[in-house]
Amino acid sequence: MISNLAKDLKIYNSISGKKESFIPIEKNNVGMYVCGPTVYSNAHLGNCRTFISFDLIFRYLTHLGFKVRYVRNLTDVGHLENEDDTGEDKISKKARLEKLEPMEVVQKYTIDFHQIMNKFNTIPPNIEPTASGHIIEQIESIKKIISSGYAYEKNGSVYFDISEFNKSKKYGKLSGRKIEEMMNQSRDLDGSSDKKNPQDFALWKKAEKNHIMNWDSPWGKGFPGWHLECTSMSKKYLGESFDIHGGGIDLKFPHHDCEIAQSEAIDGCNPAKYWMHTNMLTLNGKKMSKSVDNFILPFQIFDGQNKILSKKFDPNTVKFFIYQAHYRSILDLSDKALLASEKGFKKLISVFNLIETLKSNENKSDFNVDNWITNCYEKLNDDFNTPMLIAELFDCVKFLNGVNIGSKNLNSSDKNKISTTFKFMLFDILGFSQQLDEKTDHNSQKELIELLIKIRSNARNEKNFKLSDEIRNELLNLGIKLNDDGSSSSFEIMK
Amino acid sequence: MISNLAKDLKIYNSISGKKESFIPIEKNNVGMYVCGPTVYSNAHLGNCRTFISFDLIFRYLTHLGFKVRYVRNLTDVGHLENEDDTGEDKISKKARLEKLEPMEVVQKYTIDFHQIMNKFNTIPPNIEPTASGHIIEQIESIKKIISSGYAYEKNGSVYFDISEFNKSKKYGKLSGRKIEEMMNQSRDLDGSSDKKNPQDFALWKKAEKNHIMNWDSPWGKGFPGWHLECTSMSKKYLGESFDIHGGGIDLKFPHHDCEIAQSEAIDGCNPAKYWMHTNMLTLNGKKMSKSVDNFILPFQIFDGQNKILSKKFDPNTVKFFIYQAHYRSILDLSDKALLASEKGFKKLISVFNLIETLKSNENKSDFNVDNWITNCYEKLNDDFNTPMLIAELFDCVKFLNGVNIGSKNLNSSDKNKISTTFKFMLFDILGFSQQLDEKTDHNSQKELIELLIKIRSNARNEKNFKLSDEIRNELLNLGIKLNDDGSSSSFEIMK
Repeated sequence: MISNLAKDLKIYNSISGKKESFIPIEKNNVGMYVCGPTVYSNAHLGNCRTFISFDLIFRYLTHLGFKVRYVRNLTDVGHLENEDDTGEDKISKKARLEKLEPMEVVQKYTIDFHQIMNKFNTIPPNIEPTASGHIIEQIESIKKIISSGYAYEKNGSVYFDISEFNKSKKYGKLSGRKIEEMMNQSRDLDGSSDKKNPQDFALWKKAEKNHIMNWDSPWGKGFPGWHLECTSMSKKYLGESFDIHGGGIDLKFPHHDCEIAQSEAIDGCNPAKYWMHTNMLTLNGKKMSKSVDNFILPFQIFDGQNKILSKKFDPNTVKFFIYQAHYRSILDLSDKALLASEKGFKKLISVFNLIETLKSNENKSDFNVDNWITNCYEKLNDDFNTPMLIAELFDCVKFLNGVNIGSKNLNSSDKNKISTTFKFMLFDILGFSQQLDEKTDHNSQKELIELLIKIRSNARNEKNFKLSDEIRNELLNLGIKLNDDGSSSSFEIMK
Repeated sequence: MISNLAKDLKIYNSISGKKESFIPIEKNNVGMYVCGPTVYSNAHLGNCRTFISFDLIFRYLTHLGFKVRYVRNLTDVGHLENEDDTGEDKISKKARLEKLEPMEVVQKYTIDFHQIMNKFNTIPPNIEPTASGHIIEQIESIKKIISSGYAYEKNGSVYFDISEFNKSKKYGKLSGRKIEEMMNQSRDLDGSSDKKNPQDFALWKKAEKNHIMNWDSPWGKGFPGWHLECTSMSKKYLGESFDIHGGGIDLKFPHHDCEIAQSEAIDGCNPAKYWMHTNMLTLNGKKMSKSVDNFILPFQIFDGQNKILSKKFDPNTVKFFIYQAHYRSILDLSDKALLASEKGFKKLISVFNLIETLKSNENKSDFNVDNWITNCYEKLNDDFNTPMLIAELFDCVKFLNGVNIGSKNLNSSDKNKISTTFKFMLFDILGFSQQLDEKTDHNSQKELIELLIKIRSNARNEKNFKLSDEIRNELLNLGIKLNDDGSSSSFEIMK
């Protein structure tokens, strides 16, 4: 059952540059494809922002009742070259197991990526296809583009022919770039001179001697161009036309414009009805860059081992920080911003935890709860406006604090509605984790035991042996054994 | 640096039926391939036993100093058929997103499998290739087998020709089965009548109308036979000849015999130097079977939600239970056995936790520690004999208990050696998890706070306000706020 709220959902479509009513192609189903990470290095915080934003979208569409098929790929076909550059003969003689195996690198960083996404409490996509696992599908796509006349083979590589394509169709729909402008700007992906025009892009690249990852193809040994995997895999799992295609704003051009051109060449249509792009994440006002030491990895934020921040921050705090900007706005990470997010999130959660304990009665509430719920959903329906949603939540927080100190009245039925709505918003939709931080728990356990040891020590000094024995025995019942050593005590957990 | 201990390692090789000295093909590197799970259902406990056993082997070889490349595949090419059996026309009209997508099933059970393996604290393999991701490699393998004359195409399927193979080579090396015996026993994988002989097995299967997963091939649309993926993927990542090939004993025939035949047809050699097989896991003396309700899943053991066991058991306990039998012995799971394992493991860990607190001196120990360490490694070197290793650990536990009550002497240097060896054995090699059970921790935190509330309440009754205030304030410092309500107190954690 699709919620009535769904009819008011509006999504900003990058291709029209407007907020549009969301009407899925199939009534109850939504197909969503998001360009995933390249798994040749650690998960990047900017990427995390993108995937957290689409996790929210996935969660909200599911909350509304849609059956969503969410596909996010792993780009595992890279450009690793064999360190041994003395040629094929030497390589084949080199011991097999000593050679670099790209899939070992892929496995390492795929695990890292999944761990980080898990820490952020995001829901895994329904399908997570890999580029290397879909070479056949990509070769099929290339054959179709060649036969439609929009690609040509040269020296074992295949290129998409932008000029030919532009005779009947239009390249650059999404970015709005014009062919003429591109002539000078086109990033030549491989420095090859085999292209007819510099803006043409590779569909298949011939494998050079030292290129480790390669497959047989009708054009010889090689590997697919990067833009192709998303076209082939989105079509395989979502069909020629699906609802939402998402990714970071840096993918708009050339990646997504190339995807559209490829799909138009193969199936004659733009693959996605709604194109969505998340904006950049900067660090202290500047683009993140390793070369100028303006860079931080997600796990460095969690463990505090970095030169950028004054302390460590947990994933909920980082997520709250991300949600405090709209996904289409630039977001700047800084120590100050994270400290403010930590404070804000703690306040929100502590008031949420208070709700059950608040006194309520049958009188009218001093707060229009139905109106507030409507407002919350309106913010989500307005292109997933999380900062405005959070502002709504804080409106209610203010009221609940009033109830807590006895200056505001809360109706019992409203109390239930508020509790349910908070749970929906915080955990189902925004996807905050309810788990307590493990380490905090360990610490507090140790501190509680040490407090009991101190009380017991004082009791013994005051000859209150009844109390000191009670503490010793009760702790033993909990599996905690005190080891008395003269005046001081240590303890041991027996499990 | 490879440890000197490595030269004494002996491995039982299923193909010779003997324990053999382990001499890797390349001096410092080990290539190990283990047949992984089919990800079309929940992780099976018998499979877990296999993967825990090979995790130990991986850990021990790494401990000895070898650089191990451990490859374990995911079988994701299944035999799912479309529920809609009215034919291709109808299916193509059916909405794309409503159709069953096998990769959604694969994703679900891959995540489940990884979670279970993670709970068992196993180390992920270095490469985890999927069958669906290696269709090109499998097609290449088939072409080579056809050109060597050991396979034939019939009606869009390709079969391995056992009779032809047996003219110059020998099928059934591993299982020792004879062709004549197989004539009546051969499990016909697909009920096809296209085979020349019933024992022939499929390398490529033509996709029937409703078969969802299929790829283009030189023989038409279809999918690879199950035996082929391991041949193609082990060769791709470990080479034509590698050191260890492992799997459950049920894979010996036909799967591993087919793999050997395929490799001999392609490269003229048995792919692995050592073939290793883990034995069966039974439940209450019988084969596990869903149909007679003699079945349990790993997570049902962890959460206690099952009709087989009296309580829940944690992953360390299950792992300890698995190690109490040698990997080549049949292992029977029962409530009694798990209860005994729980007791045994607790004893082992509690004595390990004692070591640091034991008193030591410069006198000679009442225990030959060097001899004990040698014995521990001897057990591991004897085909990874974990039950004998555990018996050695308990020999030392007995001594340490003696030291604890003051009846045995422990030398300071020996204390360090024991501590180091225990750490190696328990955590590095047997791979027990050092993490405390989260839930236990939560409970004990709550219980400790309640104990403090009780002590405070008694203090108030006795007018000992100094103590009651101290408890209140110290708890507040720890972020725990007491809410006094007349005679009783509740508390609230403020974070």
